[in-house]
Amino acid sequence: VNVITVTSDRLQALGLVRATLLVDETRVRTNIQRFVDRAHASGVLLRPHFKTHQSAVVGDWIRQAGIERATVSSLGQAEYFCGHGWLDLTLAVGANPREAAEYDRLAACCDLGLCFDDPRAVVAVAGALDHQVGAWIELDPGYGRTGVPWHDGARLVELARAMAAAPGLEYRGLLAHAGHSYAAAGPAAAALVYTETLGRLQSARSALVEAGLPAGSLSAGDTPGFAAVDDWSGLDEARPGNFVFHDLMQLSVGACTEQDLACAVACPVIGVYPERGECVVHAGAVHLSKEHLATEQGPCFGRLLTLDEAGFGSLVPGWRLTGLSQEHGIVTAPEAGALADLQPGDLMLVAPVHSCLACEQFGAYRDLKGNEIGRYRRC
Amino acid sequence: VNVITVTSDRLQALGLVRATLLVDETRVRTNIQRFVDRAHASGVLLRPHFKTHQSAVVGDWIRQAGIERATVSSLGQAEYFCGHGWLDLTLAVGANPREAAEYDRLAACCDLGLCFDDPRAVVAVAGALDHQVGAWIELDPGYGRTGVPWHDGARLVELARAMAAAPGLEYRGLLAHAGHSYAAAGPAAAALVYTETLGRLQSARSALVEAGLPAGSLSAGDTPGFAAVDDWSGLDEARPGNFVFHDLMQLSVGACTEQDLACAVACPVIGVYPERGECVVHAGAVHLSKEHLATEQGPCFGRLLTLDEAGFGSLVPGWRLTGLSQEHGIVTAPEAGALADLQPGDLMLVAPVHSCLACEQFGAYRDLKGNEIGRYRRC
Repeated sequence: VNVITVTSDRLQALGLVRATLLVDETRVRTNIQRFVDRAHASGVLLRPHFKTHQSAVVGDWIRQAGIERATVSSLGQAEYFCGHGWLDLTLAVGANPREAAEYDRLAACCDLGLCFDDPRAVVAVAGALDHQVGAWIELDPGYGRTGVPWHDGARLVELARAMAAAPGLEYRGLLAHAGHSYAAAGPAAAALVYTETLGRLQSARSALVEAGLPAGSLSAGDTPGFAAVDDWSGLDEARPGNFVFHDLMQLSVGACTEQDLACAVACPVIGVYPERGECVVHAGAVHLSKEHLATEQGPCFGRLLTLDEAGFGSLVPGWRLTGLSQEHGIVTAPEAGALADLQPGDLMLVAPVHSCLACEQFGAYRDLKGNEIGRYRRC
Repeated sequence: VNVITVTSDRLQALGLVRATLLVDETRVRTNIQRFVDRAHASGVLLRPHFKTHQSAVVGDWIRQAGIERATVSSLGQAEYFCGHGWLDLTLAVGANPREAAEYDRLAACCDLGLCFDDPRAVVAVAGALDHQVGAWIELDPGYGRTGVPWHDGARLVELARAMAAAPGLEYRGLLAHAGHSYAAAGPAAAALVYTETLGRLQSARSALVEAGLPAGSLSAGDTPGFAAVDDWSGLDEARPGNFVFHDLMQLSVGACTEQDLACAVACPVIGVYPERGECVVHAGAVHLSKEHLATEQGPCFGRLLTLDEAGFGSLVPGWRLTGLSQEHGIVTAPEAGALADLQPGDLMLVAPVHSCLACEQFGAYRDLKGNEIGRYRRC
């Protein structure tokens, strides 16, 4: 049995014509339940990051697992999910003072948490508020992107005092994103990042308490770290997002198995080149993003997945997307003979390197029954 | 005068709040006219690739310069531009047999050209056509992505015969995209790619004529090559696309100057980190794409541009986007002191590395008067 051909036939039976993002609902629900169970066992609130799926339908699956809070990465996402009944949202990107009036309008409809690492932003946002907004101190736990450095007690205290002095803001606690867990060599290294992040949040909280300020909650979230650690206790809130879909990047850091890959792009073959051991699909950077994994064989922009009777199957050894331009993807076969059965119009199922960025490229997905799954889209 | 501050003030005066794609209409029209003039002087038809801007408004500016034909990279783009009065379109991505019925419907409304490199695709598409469709042989001029290798005379002849035997297809000629010009070290190297591509198209045409087949037209297009060569004669048709906006990639291969950069993303500052010599904007891979230039100082995801009174100004030396995650961009300053005047809520103007991919991320742009410029968007 040629799994490439069987997968193509099954994708054709779904009526697919061009690059289409598919999600395997069974896998998504399994992925959700795994993290819900872990949060429950740890006594930690799960506030998943919805920037991965950005879909009210997937949000419903998460809600059906008992979750009522979400994290978002833009005001537009917050407005969309508020409109779909998510009434407790944290916007986990540093507050933008120029959006303050919009934060205020949104805070009339839901509990909105914002995060800050600069007292000037606190003052600017608070000055525009008529409604109460939650305020998190964003802590940089060593990632080096945003947040107050974990060891800078003076700045933490200054920021907490600015929040306390701002009437419209209600202090919530300390929030961190340990994005450097994505560079971990495997689960053990990701677990170390997790433990270090927890320790740095706790030490920052101690600095606030010692200064006579309220302690607040501790919130963190990144899929590699939270996948690597079973017991999340010590934290108050967990904010991973990617775990609902996973992707090749999570696989490469050991945060998931092949059987957890829950979104993939069906791609039409438009050229077959046995002499090069390659074929080309009409799916490029505008469908998959240019995110890649650096491997010994060069950059990898995606891998082929099978479609089994029950849903997504396994990665097909040796097949890789080795090049990507705006609309084209170059697929390298394990050997030239493997291309013999392929022809233009066949469909391949490509597991993306970074599911968040692949999802961003599509206005809607489909499930494996052919139902359309809508999502938020930026202007 | 601090050009960063002045630019921020001018962007704020435009009422910008969050990441917004801006185009400088004057520069766009100048860029268009330059290539229109060159095509005219060379006696070559200009059929610009609209995948860069994907906008009916920018299309109107191109039409006002006397151009009536366009190239697109997807069926959806073709439908959109047909609906905006573009009635002579080439879809310059290998035909997908699964879209054949849609090609046929579109061909009832406009002159549609498709390209092929596989006789099986010719047969599959032609079998679904009621309306006449133009057929191009896609030639691989050495780029190694799609197309019949330029030296494979037997396959060229086989493909041309398949087209001649397909009643619904009207043979148009040979079409090439020399995407390897983007890897050229500068204009002289890009000009060599251009010359080589022209020679390979001509030699492929000779192979067809020698086999008693019609010659047809020669069509090529890539901005680096066509920017590097003044005289395009010898070709029948030119299909560059990026030249309307240009970007840092074109600048790096010497295809444009700073004064030709015609699109940029206004980005709000959300964090300032003098201790790291960095600030962070709320603009990431979902706004700019992950396309980067490899430089001696590491990857560059964008550079800062000034906004002058008359429009876009110059690149600001030393400021670079050095990191990009989904929603965040890390901006490295030339020296820590340069960050002293910055605060959250300021706006920076970022010239993208690849304008086609940045434009793909936005549902609409704005011009410098604040007018919205709509564009096609994939589902």
